[in-house]
Amino acid sequence: MVLCLYIAPCPVGAKEHLGAESVHCSPLPPVLGSPWQGLDRDLGHVGPPLLSPCAVPSCMGSLVPKCLGGLQEVAETPPSWLMGAGLAEMLLLRPIMRGPWGLQRTPRLAAVAWRSHPQVCTPSRTYGTWRAGDGSQRWKVMAVGALLGLGAGLAYGDHRRQASEAEPNAVAMPRAPYPVFTRQEVGRHRSLAERVWVTYGSEVFDITDFVELHPGGKSKILLAAGGALEPFWAMYAVHGQEHVLEILRGYKVGELSPEEPSQPAQGDPYSGDPPRHPALKVNSLKPFNAEPPAELLTENYLTPNQLFFKRNHLPVPAVDPARYRLEVEGPGGRVLVFSLPELKRWFPKHEVTVTLQCAGNRRSEMSRVRQVKGLEWGVAAISTARWGGVRLRDVLAHAGYTEEDEEAGERHVCFEGLDKDLSGVAYGASIPYRAAMGRGAEVLLAYEMNGEELPQDHGYPLRVVVPGVVGARNVKWLGRVSVSREESPSHWQQNDYKGFSPAVDWDTVDFATAPAIQELPVQSAITAPAPGATVPPRELTVKGYAWSGGGRGVVRVDVSLDGGRTWHVAELMGEEQRPGRAWAWRLWRLTAPVPPDRTELDIVCKAVDTSYNVQPDTVEPIWNLRGVLSNAWHHVRVTVAED
Amino acid sequence: MVLCLYIAPCPVGAKEHLGAESVHCSPLPPVLGSPWQGLDRDLGHVGPPLLSPCAVPSCMGSLVPKCLGGLQEVAETPPSWLMGAGLAEMLLLRPIMRGPWGLQRTPRLAAVAWRSHPQVCTPSRTYGTWRAGDGSQRWKVMAVGALLGLGAGLAYGDHRRQASEAEPNAVAMPRAPYPVFTRQEVGRHRSLAERVWVTYGSEVFDITDFVELHPGGKSKILLAAGGALEPFWAMYAVHGQEHVLEILRGYKVGELSPEEPSQPAQGDPYSGDPPRHPALKVNSLKPFNAEPPAELLTENYLTPNQLFFKRNHLPVPAVDPARYRLEVEGPGGRVLVFSLPELKRWFPKHEVTVTLQCAGNRRSEMSRVRQVKGLEWGVAAISTARWGGVRLRDVLAHAGYTEEDEEAGERHVCFEGLDKDLSGVAYGASIPYRAAMGRGAEVLLAYEMNGEELPQDHGYPLRVVVPGVVGARNVKWLGRVSVSREESPSHWQQNDYKGFSPAVDWDTVDFATAPAIQELPVQSAITAPAPGATVPPRELTVKGYAWSGGGRGVVRVDVSLDGGRTWHVAELMGEEQRPGRAWAWRLWRLTAPVPPDRTELDIVCKAVDTSYNVQPDTVEPIWNLRGVLSNAWHHVRVTVAED
Repeated sequence: MVLCLYIAPCPVGAKEHLGAESVHCSPLPPVLGSPWQGLDRDLGHVGPPLLSPCAVPSCMGSLVPKCLGGLQEVAETPPSWLMGAGLAEMLLLRPIMRGPWGLQRTPRLAAVAWRSHPQVCTPSRTYGTWRAGDGSQRWKVMAVGALLGLGAGLAYGDHRRQASEAEPNAVAMPRAPYPVFTRQEVGRHRSLAERVWVTYGSEVFDITDFVELHPGGKSKILLAAGGALEPFWAMYAVHGQEHVLEILRGYKVGELSPEEPSQPAQGDPYSGDPPRHPALKVNSLKPFNAEPPAELLTENYLTPNQLFFKRNHLPVPAVDPARYRLEVEGPGGRVLVFSLPELKRWFPKHEVTVTLQCAGNRRSEMSRVRQVKGLEWGVAAISTARWGGVRLRDVLAHAGYTEEDEEAGERHVCFEGLDKDLSGVAYGASIPYRAAMGRGAEVLLAYEMNGEELPQDHGYPLRVVVPGVVGARNVKWLGRVSVSREESPSHWQQNDYKGFSPAVDWDTVDFATAPAIQELPVQSAITAPAPGATVPPRELTVKGYAWSGGGRGVVRVDVSLDGGRTWHVAELMGEEQRPGRAWAWRLWRLTAPVPPDRTELDIVCKAVDTSYNVQPDTVEPIWNLRGVLSNAWHHVRVTVAED
Repeated sequence: MVLCLYIAPCPVGAKEHLGAESVHCSPLPPVLGSPWQGLDRDLGHVGPPLLSPCAVPSCMGSLVPKCLGGLQEVAETPPSWLMGAGLAEMLLLRPIMRGPWGLQRTPRLAAVAWRSHPQVCTPSRTYGTWRAGDGSQRWKVMAVGALLGLGAGLAYGDHRRQASEAEPNAVAMPRAPYPVFTRQEVGRHRSLAERVWVTYGSEVFDITDFVELHPGGKSKILLAAGGALEPFWAMYAVHGQEHVLEILRGYKVGELSPEEPSQPAQGDPYSGDPPRHPALKVNSLKPFNAEPPAELLTENYLTPNQLFFKRNHLPVPAVDPARYRLEVEGPGGRVLVFSLPELKRWFPKHEVTVTLQCAGNRRSEMSRVRQVKGLEWGVAAISTARWGGVRLRDVLAHAGYTEEDEEAGERHVCFEGLDKDLSGVAYGASIPYRAAMGRGAEVLLAYEMNGEELPQDHGYPLRVVVPGVVGARNVKWLGRVSVSREESPSHWQQNDYKGFSPAVDWDTVDFATAPAIQELPVQSAITAPAPGATVPPRELTVKGYAWSGGGRGVVRVDVSLDGGRTWHVAELMGEEQRPGRAWAWRLWRLTAPVPPDRTELDIVCKAVDTSYNVQPDTVEPIWNLRGVLSNAWHHVRVTVAED
């Protein structure tokens, strides 16, 4: 199967139109010939031409009808289309094999781009389909991620030309054997001044000279500076092709030193923490708490593991997988003990796509009203992954617990992590029994995240994933599960993660008077443009995410460009949501005319969930001393000006 | 068992403090004696004195410790306490037997009131307990209802004195045999100018001369003008005593003519509609749509049937109970037919207390922003009843349907009413299959409402009650139940009762683009004081209700007296809510100091539910062309002035 991706030409902000749009081809003038052949060389196409060049732009060949609508199967083998440089640009992508982030793309994914050809195409919405690694699971992934980096290949010609011209003056690249660098050393190279280094696999590259050539823009490539390219290439799938790797190889400067087994340094309980991607915006180092840059967050429906927000309460525990055991307390106190292989062998594997959100997401907006206690999260303490594991329900049933029984009264499933404070007290939390044992309950004991083994920061080797419920109950490094008449006695269940009236302050708060946060309220935020950005007049594309707790789906996102006076309805993207089990977010975008004669815009978004709950207008009336549940309308103010 | 109800003296607005407050007795000065005996006569006490008068006010006798905390058992038989007129007022209530609205009060309910005795008592929150008629079911009912009319008895003395003084000049009362009046004729007497008539049972009374004597105030008694006293006495239980009936008998002027069997008049499909209580505020006569006065709504946790808001889409169908049949379509199309006795015999009876709310509740506030299409509901298109019937789940299981099976895909349970338009099209609606068949589902096919047979306006003989879901899906006069891959094809499911963006108008609306409203969002409103009222300075009591859809409980109600700048946390009242099954509202109240030097107050309320969803600040951004889902903060503006 071959997938055709198109880029629709658009009058303003072409890059905003890349991605989830396809084209309907209109007949082109038959101005074709040798120029097509010329570009073929630069694009490094493979295999024999399947279609005559003129068949494509004429839009009347056998291929064309199948291309209408965007991502579609077009042939059994990749076509090697060519393009007239003065007429249109066209890109043939080589097959993308199993990516480093564990998902296998369709083996023969081809992307075709027309550019700069006026009046050829009209955009319409579409989605792509990827296959999971085992070939049995389909992954629908928006074309956005696949396409936004598409220009990379287009720069290949430029790169080759400029590289050959600049060769005499270029920084001398080391040759094998390469020097060896630690991740920390690579991490120091994050700007043009300090040079821009990245890693891919175990190799280190100095891409400083490529930054200006990057077709996706300088700002995007700099996000990867100092760290691994893998999570970015997971988002921008177009990079996973031979000619991109060829570009990269030209910039190699070294090898990564093998990861040292972490040796807890005396006196620093955090010295065993794993390395993290430098693109993350760190809110706290010890314990480690960080979120991805907002503009990356919605580039992909699934958040690459390295960029998934990280919220640790304590040092990451060092867990020896061979010695790892999960304890499950059955009725009457009998304790069952499972190794990870036993869990995998005895219980069926389930996968579920779940958005996790920290209770403190968007806390920084609350602090602007009045200082609150807590990490100053921006809008990206929320991420989405495909989790794989066993169902808590199955494990508890095996231990002797039965389905929810109303008559049995209120009970709770308590979790205890292996992460402990200096006095030996473990992180803990609980969820209502009905949330775990209801017939439709999909709470996972997860050992996989986006097809990979759980990363250390996300609870390796086993964590709880409670769909629809605040992040704090999704206990990582899970050590013990029990059922109790009482909620978890943990500090984080009893005296934290609760909502209070704005009238309550630290002098008057009584944590016993508010229920522990479980399901979160409806939420949405703008991820692009960035606050303070300059946007072009005429037309603007706004992007963001929307999500609600408790399995409630997103019905609608309203976007305003004038501070909330008038509204547009945004287009919802990403996977359709299952009724009553809408565990994962919707991404959304709106392309709308910029109100004339404005020099500034106050962009606002607000979402509606399937219970028709809406976000509150302002932050002040939901202010609370812990700065949780910050879900007022999200505002982004930008300047309007010609580029 | 005997219950003690107290009225705490309070510096301002004593009446606002009646009800759900109890007293902690402080030692009183021993200034006791003969005055107690004197009042005894007027209060018509029965039985031998159980305690010496001085034991009570001294707060040190054997009774006192049991009285602390408010409603408590104090003795096996009603005590006949007396009160010192200059010291305190005290009222002994006679046993209240089965009331006309089908609930049986505790046979020996005694209420004791202290009044005007400064510094004796400090208020604290408490609840009372009533028994249901069968003695097996406990009804917790707030003391508010029981106490607010408490003063009635106190007026008895006044009434007797004034009546005897005024006898020579009084309007001559007819003697038996009395003239016979229709309900319509009674309904014409609703003001002092037209005289104030009421009914009780089958008797008609002219209570014009009692209006000014009414201890609960003139405005309260006038709410009953022109109609039956029963629903009011259900709210203000204090009326159900012999001496109150004695007062009433003195005003008898006639008998009610027996209810004519309704004969549909030619050309008026609504001529078969039942009589309604004139206290209802009518939004539309044909079809009949009406709500109770807001100030009555929260006087009782359960809304008396006659005052429960009424929302009909079509004429009330005349259903012959002997011929009534419910059709249930099983898998494969086989139709089961049940008579009402069969349903009652074959399936267990369940009772559940459920708040129903019209999607258009508070629509009038939306119309103030921009005119919407729909009935101009105030804040009282919401009411609560205890419903009795069989579980839809049991009936569907009997018909061959199984518990929710996720793999089976999305299905819907469709309901069809017996109410039809002129072309024979019935009212219809549907709910998701999982809402009906989930393990915890409590959807009822109800034949009882607050212990009575379903009233005609509420779906006699059988209706659907879907807890947590918009009123429109609670199909009345139920004729047929079926299961379908599609939602009900009814107009009211497909092209009404959906929410849209404020950007959508009647020119652009596409009803297919929005989901049918099922669960409603979090809601609250102020029921007292009334908009435009004058309130005393110093201290104010605000009352209202709060509720959320989907079984989500009410966590908190914030109340502001300054338009939302500062907030107080209100006290929640009424029954505790079951976690995840909070189908019924919480009533709430706040007593707070009036900000000094204010001549006007902008009182605001907003509620938070267990998913920590909140109400939006303003109406404009949730405006929608049908005026549904109006749940912005509720504002009531009042004037501050001395009485």
